Amino acid sequence: MSYCAIVLAAGDGKRMKSSKPKVMCEVLGDPMIDWVLDGVRDAGIPDNNVGVVIGSGAETVKAHLAKRGEYRTFMQTERKGTGHAVMQAAEMIKAGENVLVLCGDAPFINGDVLTTALNEHVHSGNDVTVITADLPDPAGYGRIIRGENGELSGIVEKKDCTLVQLGITEINSGVYWFKASALADALPKLSADNAAGEYYLTDTVGIILESGGKAGTFTAEDGDIVLGANNRADLLALNIIAKMQVIQRHLDEGVEFVSTDGIIIGRNVQIGRDTTILPGTILRGNTVIGENCNLGPNTLIENCRIGNGVTLNSVQAYDSRVCDRVKAGPFVQLRPGTVLHDGVKIGDFVEIKNSEIGVNTAVAHLTYVGDSDVGKGVNFGCGCVTANYDGINKYRTKIGDYAFIGCNTNLIAPVEIGENATTAAGSTITKAVPPDSLAVERSQTKIIENWEKNFQRIKKA
Amino acid sequence: MSYCAIVLAAGDGKRMKSSKPKVMCEVLGDPMIDWVLDGVRDAGIPDNNVGVVIGSGAETVKAHLAKRGEYRTFMQTERKGTGHAVMQAAEMIKAGENVLVLCGDAPFINGDVLTTALNEHVHSGNDVTVITADLPDPAGYGRIIRGENGELSGIVEKKDCTLVQLGITEINSGVYWFKASALADALPKLSADNAAGEYYLTDTVGIILESGGKAGTFTAEDGDIVLGANNRADLLALNIIAKMQVIQRHLDEGVEFVSTDGIIIGRNVQIGRDTTILPGTILRGNTVIGENCNLGPNTLIENCRIGNGVTLNSVQAYDSRVCDRVKAGPFVQLRPGTVLHDGVKIGDFVEIKNSEIGVNTAVAHLTYVGDSDVGKGVNFGCGCVTANYDGINKYRTKIGDYAFIGCNTNLIAPVEIGENATTAAGSTITKAVPPDSLAVERSQTKIIENWEKNFQRIKKA
Amino acid sequence: MSYCAIVLAAGDGKRMKSSKPKVMCEVLGDPMIDWVLDGVRDAGIPDNNVGVVIGSGAETVKAHLAKRGEYRTFMQTERKGTGHAVMQAAEMIKAGENVLVLCGDAPFINGDVLTTALNEHVHSGNDVTVITADLPDPAGYGRIIRGENGELSGIVEKKDCTLVQLGITEINSGVYWFKASALADALPKLSADNAAGEYYLTDTVGIILESGGKAGTFTAEDGDIVLGANNRADLLALNIIAKMQVIQRHLDEGVEFVSTDGIIIGRNVQIGRDTTILPGTILRGNTVIGENCNLGPNTLIENCRIGNGVTLNSVQAYDSRVCDRVKAGPFVQLRPGTVLHDGVKIGDFVEIKNSEIGVNTAVAHLTYVGDSDVGKGVNFGCGCVTANYDGINKYRTKIGDYAFIGCNTNLIAPVEIGENATTAAGSTITKAVPPDSLAVERSQTKIIENWEKNFQRIKKA
Repeated sequence: MSYCAIVLAAGDGKRMKSSKPKVMCEVLGDPMIDWVLDGVRDAGIPDNNVGVVIGSGAETVKAHLAKRGEYRTFMQTERKGTGHAVMQAAEMIKAGENVLVLCGDAPFINGDVLTTALNEHVHSGNDVTVITADLPDPAGYGRIIRGENGELSGIVEKKDCTLVQLGITEINSGVYWFKASALADALPKLSADNAAGEYYLTDTVGIILESGGKAGTFTAEDGDIVLGANNRADLLALNIIAKMQVIQRHLDEGVEFVSTDGIIIGRNVQIGRDTTILPGTILRGNTVIGENCNLGPNTLIENCRIGNGVTLNSVQAYDSRVCDRVKAGPFVQLRPGTVLHDGVKIGDFVEIKNSEIGVNTAVAHLTYVGDSDVGKGVNFGCGCVTANYDGINKYRTKIGDYAFIGCNTNLIAPVEIGENATTAAGSTITKAVPPDSLAVERSQTKIIENWEKNFQRIKKA
Repeated sequence: MSYCAIVLAAGDGKRMKSSKPKVMCEVLGDPMIDWVLDGVRDAGIPDNNVGVVIGSGAETVKAHLAKRGEYRTFMQTERKGTGHAVMQAAEMIKAGENVLVLCGDAPFINGDVLTTALNEHVHSGNDVTVITADLPDPAGYGRIIRGENGELSGIVEKKDCTLVQLGITEINSGVYWFKASALADALPKLSADNAAGEYYLTDTVGIILESGGKAGTFTAEDGDIVLGANNRADLLALNIIAKMQVIQRHLDEGVEFVSTDGIIIGRNVQIGRDTTILPGTILRGNTVIGENCNLGPNTLIENCRIGNGVTLNSVQAYDSRVCDRVKAGPFVQLRPGTVLHDGVKIGDFVEIKNSEIGVNTAVAHLTYVGDSDVGKGVNFGCGCVTANYDGINKYRTKIGDYAFIGCNTNLIAPVEIGENATTAAGSTITKAVPPDSLAVERSQTKIIENWEKNFQRIKKA
Repeated sequence: MSYCAIVLAAGDGKRMKSSKPKVMCEVLGDPMIDWVLDGVRDAGIPDNNVGVVIGSGAETVKAHLAKRGEYRTFMQTERKGTGHAVMQAAEMIKAGENVLVLCGDAPFINGDVLTTALNEHVHSGNDVTVITADLPDPAGYGRIIRGENGELSGIVEKKDCTLVQLGITEINSGVYWFKASALADALPKLSADNAAGEYYLTDTVGIILESGGKAGTFTAEDGDIVLGANNRADLLALNIIAKMQVIQRHLDEGVEFVSTDGIIIGRNVQIGRDTTILPGTILRGNTVIGENCNLGPNTLIENCRIGNGVTLNSVQAYDSRVCDRVKAGPFVQLRPGTVLHDGVKIGDFVEIKNSEIGVNTAVAHLTYVGDSDVGKGVNFGCGCVTANYDGINKYRTKIGDYAFIGCNTNLIAPVEIGENATTAAGSTITKAVPPDSLAVERSQTKIIENWEKNFQRIKKA
């Protein structure tokens, strides 16, 4: 048997007061729809069996989906309820399949719940299986109504609940598994004959029951799977929940946190044991951190691979690779394309960009190394600059092993410094420096005596 | 009818263990008395109708008030209770007026509550209207005592409460509206014949009732208005409450927060929708932020106007203006008098001070631009310095459109770089560089071969 | 009467998923065993009367203890329970003494509790006194069982509790005072004849009671003293509790906090009143901060002595001394051996290392001062570098009072700049500059007209 999924993603960000469509609002740096589609993928449903109903900000969502995979999209031009949304994607429903319907703005649904619910759905021979959760504070969610024998008899929206029904804590997650035939039969029977004038997907349950079908529930253990965001405060709450879940997972794996303040870790980041994360540290994207590292305070890492035993104190690193036992910081930026080999030391106020820095090389302070290939055991003095840009093109600088770059040296690329070569402090180097040699660009120093007397700086000051 | 206000601000910071007078202790960066006086101003009472009773740190408070507006001050040389404090300001009380009395160290009172309470006071024809609040935990506040018909019959300080009275959750906020005549009559009747030997303003309620006057209450919906600070822990609590209220207000307006950690936003800061505030961001003073900005992590902005689509990553900015689509950071300082025009890019380890930077100009790294007028499309190499100070005076540097400033260039002000001009890396420029020309200050480079062999750096190391 | 203590510190970090032994896991930057041993020291027990039972990571613990004091260690090669651990240290038990037994991984025990419990132990003539606590949620702790008259009748591990016993909220802290003779008698009677096959120290209570001895309890007021850490989440919880206790103590002393986010203060740090600590500030080690300072945001201080009226904004300082009224930041590093005298100003992107900076000297931006002795009233321009390293040795730089170091000056150590001397911007100074003189190393500047036309940078761009 095969499966397909219909994801409802047409909502706008009006209550968010955002120009973004709602499903593009982010939790831990990823749009909510990514969380949902990852859950669908984890449940084993291939992207091309997933139909996304779009509406508000359709182009934005479509462009985003195109980057993720081969999704089908269906345009809902009018906003006429969840049932109406599913109708737009009716051609997804193929005989004999099971159809998953879920919301693109409830990010905590996951593959495990979807799969287990599907098993229950198939095993029970249900025509529809509603995923439910038990919430101590059921708030605005639709309540699950059960018959005398505990069987599902309907779903009542909060605003239609009696006082007794309001006390029900089992609620509708908005996620359903349908038999294709049951959904196909029920959709045309939905009516918009209600106060809101909308077609409600929840009404399919009653329709299925009335036509003699079988409706059941699957109760998720973790109530968080139902949580969605209608406004910025909701979204903040989702971010905080997600943050703590990610941190708990890393704690379980032996990562050390002495505080969780200001820490935001993307859900796909990997961290080795005995690594310590200090406050204010943000780890994003496709990032892997080794063991025994010290990150932070205030370190920001995006799409980097960090080795073992690395210290990054107040470093920002983007799309870079940092090998073992590197120490960097405080106040360092590693821009995309940086590779720091084992044992490299980067001191304060240093930027490295699109450069490879060899084993044990030291760049101690106030230096910019860009578009460079630097050997091992090189020592950069303070204030060195690789001048890689002439206003038109960018060029590379090559520095041999064990070279010694004097303070405030300018290396005007393209240029090559030989092995063991030295550049004198304050020199601007425009031509190759042979191995073992010293290059010095400097004038005679003149001393003008009694200058202070004439200039009278101190008296005037 | 006109109004006046008497603000009690004589308390010391003894329990704060502070050398500051208590009302000068700050919530979200503003002294508590500023919050109170802003509330009074919002209630429509002009500054020169406000009398502030000062005592501890009188000179400090007076100097601060002088910066705010034309307040009258009254010295309370002895600390003999709230009634005694009001007596010092007795000349504020003018026949026919209504007199507001409130505390300078309860910052969350606001114009709405004061105005609504005044309306109630006038409408009911009260001689005194006590503003009250309902607190689940009434703690040390004076309890409101009511008669059989619910009418106000008195206020009992916590320490004088019976067990039954302790259970009362309606408490005295310490804010009152008086008819001038009623207050003027009651004040001389206050007695210090009690354990503390102090004149209590609360006793005026009983005095007014006894003399056949009318006393009523106005219950504020938001219990926070009564909160004050007697010690540092209280003050921290007020800061946290205020922080969350300000953030909630911005969430409602469509500002994005993925965390509230380390974020402190002054109560007068404005932020446009779809702007994201990352952890560790502090926004202070008279600051306006546009839409679609990204601020933080660890960005500190004080008295700045920031345009739309601006990214400020780990930037500190003071008294500056940043136009649209500017990107700055990480690790940047904008000092007072900076103007960054549209599309400017400021990279890491850059300081701009008292300078105007033209459209699309780039200052990529390790550069100081001070006292300069920089055109559009200028490119600064790494390590450039405007040497604006000769030990006596500061001078300006002028750089024309599309100039290209080579790495580690020193521009010795006063100096002018023409349009399209280029300075060679490592040059110190002391005289004007004409448009379109190249200026180069550099010596011949000497190469000393086999220097490493003689110097034996590597062997020795 | 004399006392000794046996500290159980053999546990591994398996559930921590750490390569560290458990007692070396840190709370507020100190290993948990340091907290415990400080408590023992505060209780007046000399280090050489303290025996530490080690096992997992024995060498690590031993090396750490050796740095603290003259402790005796006992190896527990097999992990066979708390009773077995104490047996390894049996030779500590000397006739006539009282013996304290406690865990090395429950950091909040303190000298006050230990001393007061000892007094109770001696005064009651107990053979064993169990320190207990009342926990609202007794969780996994052993329950204290009392007889009809309230006397201690035993300790039951949680897993052996009846339903009724599970409701008991008085729990065993794992800290005991024993009469030496009672402990010596009881230890050999312990049996490992239980499910776990371990010797439980708790069984000594029953053994003592059975042999007619006297067993009592001392209930600690503060339940936190029992808290230990078995996994990373526990350890994080201990860090958060400790953080808030330390902050509360400083609030009580008149230190100002507007937020506690990202703030971590070591338990031995001292801070003067009216000092404000902003978010993201970490104070570690042997650090003393004066009055009226402003620290943060994002300031990290380790082993420093900071004077009064100092502002450190986004500064990292290690093993340094900062005198009164110094202002530094944002983005500054003070490396070990720095001394900043009164009134020094350090601006952005400045590193000072192993240097003494005289009164009122200013180092405004993008400068490195290392291994230098700098007089008073000196002014450093932007981009100055003390080139202290020639690849083999480090040398010192000496700068006289009121000298003026021009922008981008390189000072090639060893070198001396005289009083009132000036160096011209962009100069590399290799020889002594006499007092009052100007040193200038610079070439003639050449202007190449119409260069832009030929180079065509702007057209190409």
